[in-house]
Amino acid sequence: MAGNTFGTLFRLTTFGESHGPAIGGVIDGMPAGVKVELDYIQYELDRRKPGQSAITTSRKESDRLIILSGVLDQQTLGTPIGFMLHNEDQQSEDYDQLKDVYRPGHADEVWEKKFGIRDHRGGGRSSARETAARVAGGAFAKVLLAKSGVSVNAYVHSVGKIEVPSSYDELDLAATEESMVRCPHSPTSERMIAAIESARDEGDSLGGTIICVCKGLPAGLGEPVFDKLHAVLAHAVLSINATQGFELLHGFDSTKTKGSENNLRNTGVSGGISTGDDLVFRVAFKPVSTIRKKQMARTTSGENVELEAAGRHDPCVLPRAVPIVEAMAALVLADMQLLHKR
Amino acid sequence: MAGNTFGTLFRLTTFGESHGPAIGGVIDGMPAGVKVELDYIQYELDRRKPGQSAITTSRKESDRLIILSGVLDQQTLGTPIGFMLHNEDQQSEDYDQLKDVYRPGHADEVWEKKFGIRDHRGGGRSSARETAARVAGGAFAKVLLAKSGVSVNAYVHSVGKIEVPSSYDELDLAATEESMVRCPHSPTSERMIAAIESARDEGDSLGGTIICVCKGLPAGLGEPVFDKLHAVLAHAVLSINATQGFELLHGFDSTKTKGSENNLRNTGVSGGISTGDDLVFRVAFKPVSTIRKKQMARTTSGENVELEAAGRHDPCVLPRAVPIVEAMAALVLADMQLLHKR
Amino acid sequence: MAGNTFGTLFRLTTFGESHGPAIGGVIDGMPAGVKVELDYIQYELDRRKPGQSAITTSRKESDRLIILSGVLDQQTLGTPIGFMLHNEDQQSEDYDQLKDVYRPGHADEVWEKKFGIRDHRGGGRSSARETAARVAGGAFAKVLLAKSGVSVNAYVHSVGKIEVPSSYDELDLAATEESMVRCPHSPTSERMIAAIESARDEGDSLGGTIICVCKGLPAGLGEPVFDKLHAVLAHAVLSINATQGFELLHGFDSTKTKGSENNLRNTGVSGGISTGDDLVFRVAFKPVSTIRKKQMARTTSGENVELEAAGRHDPCVLPRAVPIVEAMAALVLADMQLLHKR
Amino acid sequence: MAGNTFGTLFRLTTFGESHGPAIGGVIDGMPAGVKVELDYIQYELDRRKPGQSAITTSRKESDRLIILSGVLDQQTLGTPIGFMLHNEDQQSEDYDQLKDVYRPGHADEVWEKKFGIRDHRGGGRSSARETAARVAGGAFAKVLLAKSGVSVNAYVHSVGKIEVPSSYDELDLAATEESMVRCPHSPTSERMIAAIESARDEGDSLGGTIICVCKGLPAGLGEPVFDKLHAVLAHAVLSINATQGFELLHGFDSTKTKGSENNLRNTGVSGGISTGDDLVFRVAFKPVSTIRKKQMARTTSGENVELEAAGRHDPCVLPRAVPIVEAMAALVLADMQLLHKR
Repeated sequence: MAGNTFGTLFRLTTFGESHGPAIGGVIDGMPAGVKVELDYIQYELDRRKPGQSAITTSRKESDRLIILSGVLDQQTLGTPIGFMLHNEDQQSEDYDQLKDVYRPGHADEVWEKKFGIRDHRGGGRSSARETAARVAGGAFAKVLLAKSGVSVNAYVHSVGKIEVPSSYDELDLAATEESMVRCPHSPTSERMIAAIESARDEGDSLGGTIICVCKGLPAGLGEPVFDKLHAVLAHAVLSINATQGFELLHGFDSTKTKGSENNLRNTGVSGGISTGDDLVFRVAFKPVSTIRKKQMARTTSGENVELEAAGRHDPCVLPRAVPIVEAMAALVLADMQLLHKR
Repeated sequence: MAGNTFGTLFRLTTFGESHGPAIGGVIDGMPAGVKVELDYIQYELDRRKPGQSAITTSRKESDRLIILSGVLDQQTLGTPIGFMLHNEDQQSEDYDQLKDVYRPGHADEVWEKKFGIRDHRGGGRSSARETAARVAGGAFAKVLLAKSGVSVNAYVHSVGKIEVPSSYDELDLAATEESMVRCPHSPTSERMIAAIESARDEGDSLGGTIICVCKGLPAGLGEPVFDKLHAVLAHAVLSINATQGFELLHGFDSTKTKGSENNLRNTGVSGGISTGDDLVFRVAFKPVSTIRKKQMARTTSGENVELEAAGRHDPCVLPRAVPIVEAMAALVLADMQLLHKR
Repeated sequence: MAGNTFGTLFRLTTFGESHGPAIGGVIDGMPAGVKVELDYIQYELDRRKPGQSAITTSRKESDRLIILSGVLDQQTLGTPIGFMLHNEDQQSEDYDQLKDVYRPGHADEVWEKKFGIRDHRGGGRSSARETAARVAGGAFAKVLLAKSGVSVNAYVHSVGKIEVPSSYDELDLAATEESMVRCPHSPTSERMIAAIESARDEGDSLGGTIICVCKGLPAGLGEPVFDKLHAVLAHAVLSINATQGFELLHGFDSTKTKGSENNLRNTGVSGGISTGDDLVFRVAFKPVSTIRKKQMARTTSGENVELEAAGRHDPCVLPRAVPIVEAMAALVLADMQLLHKR
Repeated sequence: MAGNTFGTLFRLTTFGESHGPAIGGVIDGMPAGVKVELDYIQYELDRRKPGQSAITTSRKESDRLIILSGVLDQQTLGTPIGFMLHNEDQQSEDYDQLKDVYRPGHADEVWEKKFGIRDHRGGGRSSARETAARVAGGAFAKVLLAKSGVSVNAYVHSVGKIEVPSSYDELDLAATEESMVRCPHSPTSERMIAAIESARDEGDSLGGTIICVCKGLPAGLGEPVFDKLHAVLAHAVLSINATQGFELLHGFDSTKTKGSENNLRNTGVSGGISTGDDLVFRVAFKPVSTIRKKQMARTTSGENVELEAAGRHDPCVLPRAVPIVEAMAALVLADMQLLHKR
């Protein structure tokens, strides 16, 4: 298995299965002498953790960050930052029914084909639990970016067919955290919550999109040919479970305009390099595959069976995905900043 | 500058400015003993080259491939394949007006901010000419993939608001090359051509989307965490000039469905790993920024001026982008195949 | 800080300061389904740990391996193997005298110049304690190599001016562990021990050389141009603290022969590629810089002072360096094996 | 095949077989706006080229540098620098006798085992001709280093058993180029030349060592754990054909001293980080394997035959290896400088 490291100069390497002893990671490339409030890192982890609200899974993980190295007296040493979070509340028995069944929409079957072995307890390494390590890494990246005035804020733009009717710059992004669904447009937020509750009650799930707004970027980030800024951002966020698409602001819509119109627009990136204006992108998440409703599934011996998932699952991942999208964007921007500085 | 190399085990490194002596690249990782018809590599380059039809730029580049190493008697040696294409027909004087003006929608201004120096003659390294080296590299990747039965075929799905009304699997992809606009759906193709001609006559430009179909993939390609197959594909194709978005088949649409419906769909990738089914994705290209119509531009000294671009430009890049999208997808798949094999 | 990851396909990333909470690492690239006796990994760590014999430091670290991920029921999952060892017995007060003094021969001063911050307690990240993570990583590599019949065995060839009078192939390498100094030639071993004890009693230290013998290699390992097998081996072992030189068997001596003689010799590597014969190399370690004897040192404010090191130090690192050299060699060979397999 | 790229931020990728159309490379990471006299790059290539003096091979290659990109009006653009040198004077017929014979001491046999295919004409990719691309890349690195006052000068320290009796700092390194054998100690130079002529007349060959002196380095270069400065330097220079060993100044000798003595010495690197003092290292080259004298060789069908090499070969590679050692060291130092700057 490769692909457990992300970045060139600001690098995050992660490890951990959902039902093993712990998950964690190593951040390499964080400069020395940066003040880091560990409470802030924990705060970001808490934004992602399960059980945080009525519309997320009722699983409980304290997701308590343990720093193993690289930080002394809340200051970075310039050395790799090792960290871990113990896995808790593992109701592995919930997964017993899955030992011989591949969950529809999940990586169970391909994982077994690829590795010849599969940890059936909650997806193992393919579980979304893996993203906690990304959030921790991204939080350090955010601390670094904040030093040069760069901020990264995401919010839920749509859930199912319900979407925010305003443009990102008409919203008060500070209001995002006040919404259980992390949508800063209050009336839309309420409609989204109702829709998620209704899907949950049906034993079904919903997808949606997240918009991420990066402000304060200097002009010049991004490496012009293969590592264009938006290309690497897409790589980063599409590596999050359940993602299906990425576009810059106006992305797919811009294909329907003429050059004379579209040239007036601004997406914060030109030729793959940041322009210094807001950089905004949108990410598509499919509805969660694990649903309580009965569905057909394939067994490891190739038979079709009806599956009614036990376990405690999110009816909609969007609210908890907001900090993950921010984390992945922050990792890219911190890396690009270091690459640009040379 | 970084970012001129793509891939881990199957790697392409490229070089070249549009108006320097040559562009080219080095392919490292092509296995030894693979039969390569150089005419086929040239054929792929010809699909990309300017001046190939009535709806592309009238610039002429013969784009004659010169192999410098790595291939002997049409067989790979296992050593790096160096190649180059001379730059020809450089009407650099067309660009004289651009010495002190930044073209709207182009990377001119940010490039100068990033590097402190800019080759104003046709964009230099930021020119789309750079993609010829990708097509050459991708053609070698296709040869390798073909040995294990993998094919990569793209086509123009939409131009402006005109789009193919059928699903990819209802089309005869072999018909793509018969269409000047590389759309295999004949009536749509004709409407697209008319629209492009009309935009060209107005001095304007059009965008659109390309669908890419990868068939014959084994199950298991893709590295599960940060290098999920669709994440790396997005990175690859969004590194092409003018791209604005990427989605897996049903990508943004899937966000509007419920889990119980969406689980029945198939996008060829699960948990970031290929399933063995067709893998299909769509890429958004904005309308070409360079247009003949007058538009406001900024000068290097910060004034606003009217700009009426001279030079010979494509009114729509989609037809010529088809082989580039295929090339980038092929580079990813070849790399993932080698990574998977170990 | 970069450089905390080693390898391309079999990769070890390490973290940890000597006096922080823990040291550890992540192994990425270990194939799935490999049986690993964790007792064996612990055994290798025990070979490196301080306090193991009368001629090593009296510091005590239990160096108890904690596996965090990637192994289930003593079998690898193909996912990254996270591991850690708690730091114990940290007599940080021993280092109080070093807060304002740079130890001669140590990285204290350059480290502070590089990072602007320094963990003075035992060297922090520059401490040899960091090598425990290498030994753990290398032990996994050895397990993988053993599956294809490759073994890596090092031994102490010389301590100061005392050296083994026999060639590596006349020795019984299985006897290495029976010797406190890890020299398989019994009479030489005794002389070395006496010399180390005498240096220790004087408050001084000794250097020496280690020979490493790799057997069972297939022909073909090594990448011919920049990553020649012996070049990467040199990189690997010279990244161990206190190393000063590397040579293939007969290395420096071969420069004094003629081609007609030297062509008859065999070093197990030709053109940077393994030949299938034994690959043997030798590494030079300088005498430990930290000595009890008084020496002149520079203070952080630039004055010269007399320093008499407190703390518990090895009078000769060679015996404990044997498993570290093996570990680094094993990491290289495992990586080269995976690279070669494609 | 991997391993045709060297470096992290200052990267050289090379291509080319000795008897193919050309060899060359791509330098990625050279900053923009650096003035480069191309005559200087050519001068460095001329120092390496065959046929330059009475004691090198009589083969003639003009080794005329062709810059393909990245430099405009003798100034770098910040984009990748593509370059090539045509192969000339290929007396391929000299190699006809080698089609079915593996040359002793050469990579012929392992190469064929590794790749299943071999270009027998002069070694193909394993030929020392490949090093011309390193010299070109290294010359650009030297230009960059010179801007911050760093110089890299190597010289021949020993040929066979004849060695310079003085320390590097007692020599006038500017005199190196005046000596045909590139030894700045005039009486030793004469003895070396006589020895090489005598070996050549016998149809035999000689080895030796090169000392490389890096001056003007700032404190702080080198990445402390796996990428210690001397470890990466060893990797770099041991990737040159025919190398057998590497040591820092006093390297193997230091193993025979006590800590109290050795701590007084200075090798310019501490804990893998440059101290700001001269950094000096020595590299061992075995005698050239190709000799005119009859020797036993193995045929591709496994028989032993007598081989009397035709072709035009250096009786001693040391003089021509001097610029190659400098080039590899410069590549490392330029890369480390960029890594350190962030």
